[in-house]
Amino acid sequence: MKKVGIALLGLGVVGSGTYRILESKKEKIMRDFGVELEVRHVLEKDTSKAVALGIDLSKVSCDIENVVKDDKISVVAEFFGGIEPARTFLLAVLKAGKSIVTSNKELFSKHWPELEAAAKETGAGIYFEASCGGGVPIIRALHESCQGNDILEIKGIVNGTTNYILSNMSEHGSDYAETLKEAQKLGYAEANPSADVDGFDSTYKLSILSSLAFNKRVPYTSIYREGISKVTIDDIKFGKEFGLTVKLLAISKNVNGKIEAHVYPAFIPDDHPLAKVSGAFNGIYVVGDNVGELMFYGKGAGDLPTGSAIVSDIVYAATRAEHRRYPFILEAEAQDFNDDFVSEYFLRLTVKDETGVLSAITGILGKAGISIDSMVQKAGSNGKATLAFVTQKTTELTFRKALSELEAAPCVTEINSVIRVEK
Amino acid sequence: MKKVGIALLGLGVVGSGTYRILESKKEKIMRDFGVELEVRHVLEKDTSKAVALGIDLSKVSCDIENVVKDDKISVVAEFFGGIEPARTFLLAVLKAGKSIVTSNKELFSKHWPELEAAAKETGAGIYFEASCGGGVPIIRALHESCQGNDILEIKGIVNGTTNYILSNMSEHGSDYAETLKEAQKLGYAEANPSADVDGFDSTYKLSILSSLAFNKRVPYTSIYREGISKVTIDDIKFGKEFGLTVKLLAISKNVNGKIEAHVYPAFIPDDHPLAKVSGAFNGIYVVGDNVGELMFYGKGAGDLPTGSAIVSDIVYAATRAEHRRYPFILEAEAQDFNDDFVSEYFLRLTVKDETGVLSAITGILGKAGISIDSMVQKAGSNGKATLAFVTQKTTELTFRKALSELEAAPCVTEINSVIRVEK
Repeated sequence: MKKVGIALLGLGVVGSGTYRILESKKEKIMRDFGVELEVRHVLEKDTSKAVALGIDLSKVSCDIENVVKDDKISVVAEFFGGIEPARTFLLAVLKAGKSIVTSNKELFSKHWPELEAAAKETGAGIYFEASCGGGVPIIRALHESCQGNDILEIKGIVNGTTNYILSNMSEHGSDYAETLKEAQKLGYAEANPSADVDGFDSTYKLSILSSLAFNKRVPYTSIYREGISKVTIDDIKFGKEFGLTVKLLAISKNVNGKIEAHVYPAFIPDDHPLAKVSGAFNGIYVVGDNVGELMFYGKGAGDLPTGSAIVSDIVYAATRAEHRRYPFILEAEAQDFNDDFVSEYFLRLTVKDETGVLSAITGILGKAGISIDSMVQKAGSNGKATLAFVTQKTTELTFRKALSELEAAPCVTEINSVIRVEK
Repeated sequence: MKKVGIALLGLGVVGSGTYRILESKKEKIMRDFGVELEVRHVLEKDTSKAVALGIDLSKVSCDIENVVKDDKISVVAEFFGGIEPARTFLLAVLKAGKSIVTSNKELFSKHWPELEAAAKETGAGIYFEASCGGGVPIIRALHESCQGNDILEIKGIVNGTTNYILSNMSEHGSDYAETLKEAQKLGYAEANPSADVDGFDSTYKLSILSSLAFNKRVPYTSIYREGISKVTIDDIKFGKEFGLTVKLLAISKNVNGKIEAHVYPAFIPDDHPLAKVSGAFNGIYVVGDNVGELMFYGKGAGDLPTGSAIVSDIVYAATRAEHRRYPFILEAEAQDFNDDFVSEYFLRLTVKDETGVLSAITGILGKAGISIDSMVQKAGSNGKATLAFVTQKTTELTFRKALSELEAAPCVTEINSVIRVEK
């Protein structure tokens, strides 16, 4: 039987989960895929983690040369996260002709071309199923199941932390700050939550997914980004009256060859397949021009779910002589981005509770060519009222212009929030 | 560039859709996958179909020898459906070393070992993504994304016709016979609808999915089967009061090495990911011991969605020298089936509207060790009432035994329906 040596770089949560799966499924993988996977080396400075997993310490070090120089290692899985030393180590490994497997979305979205070039030189493979959607096999699906399609749209809930926070706000009516604190206490959010709540993590993932889907590099820097910290419990409550649920969405569209790529909190209809993706789950909705709508759903993080995706890549790499190539990635960077995209908008305003106010506001919107789909008005205190609108489709620039006119209108006390609506 | 010759056997709905995709995406597939696909021969007796697609009639015949003898054809896609002549033709093609692609679930579930043996002899490949779930890439997901898992459970809505009927009954309150007639008029159901409504189509698909998932052959004849024709609008209405939605489910479970495989209408909670899979969509829910819950959703039929899955297999086969093998399929047939499986049950009874009836019935259930989860009672006419229960977990045999006691009880006028509940 074919025997393939593996190295694991790091024994954090996912690294440890991967090791446990490789051990517990060793026999199964031999039986079903005809390959014996042997973990020959582990890079980890905290040896207690290796001891806890029962790994012989003779296999553990901090020196990447122990991996690079071992000819029997042909697949290297990286769990460090962040750019360095992951980048340097993986480049060294690829140059030695070993295939890499990673869940590192930040590294991958920022340095894919460099890694791909190194892999191309030696014929090694690059696998990154675990970089997007945790255990959800979305990379395989985009690359190996949609070949007869032009992908028109991706709409994903790809960050479990923000989805947990928004789901909890929605279910329990608690506010953002309180829910974030709770999530931090439970380990669902980091002490510094910015990478998640400000949407950076989602932009890295959307960059990878969009590049695959559109077969052009979509740099994460080209992705418009808004986080969830401004979403209030009032927005969620008004949304419910319109039959809408708020989610942090990673959206990219190919509109007549122009790419639109955005990460922002958005309302979706309660009956959209993504609306039921709650808590730490991820859901990725894909539209192809031939296959139509597809959706993929599963756990977006965690030792064993993400470890499952890593092991899937390891088995894939270990059983194939020809590795996958992404020919586009070195060649074409998407140039044509559409800033003035079309959307619907949820708009919540505090206004003076006077005769003629509604007419003045709808007048401003009407003059800008923005039609109103639905409206809710609530009386407030101190002679004020709240108006919430959902518009029909308009362009971002048109809406922004109308918004500045609303801001200047004497009857408008405050523009409380603007959230895009994706139907 | 690598050039691969293709043959299409049949130009029905999916065959024509496949041809259209191969033509319209020819350039894309060359650019992204480095292979030129050329349709070199088509088997079809109705030449008008070939003319409609613009296929040169010199490439069209009814003779499989034209395919077998063409050395430049290396991938053959079959669209005949049914057993013959598909079986004979595909065996001939495999023996000539050509890979096959099929959406033919009946043939595949009945003759997989024979086809696999023929493929093994010549090193050809067998691809059947389109056989289950239409455009949904569930075969790839089970075989190439879950390698590090033992699959514990599959729960699928895999038949669009029955899902269309049940969704419509639920949404419009129309009865079964009326909805079936409507579906036939719209082309969603066949004139003889038995293959769909009696659950045969779902058992073929579940046989294929379970064999892959459990890595043992699960013959369709080992699958317990009930169709949807007994589901009434009253069941659906009572289900709604319990927060349950009825679906025709294809379920298989691996319970401590014993396989349970069933196709039957079942209630699922309204908030289960499958409950929102409506109309002609398919949804397949998979639980792996490491990855946890996954769900795959998309169009279960149609020229272009199913054609998309076929083209995906064609590209996969055309770009690989090493074809996929399923080592288990010739070797191990699952032997250990569990007949006395555990489920919850929805039970609807017409009873005499008298004092003591409820106590008598709950007494019978209680004596059998069956606990009641929830209950609704409705007064009827002529001194009768309707009782609807949802039980807690019990075994099929226990429930069947209690049911025969209920049937014999003087206070029970009729047992209207029994529908399993899957939570």
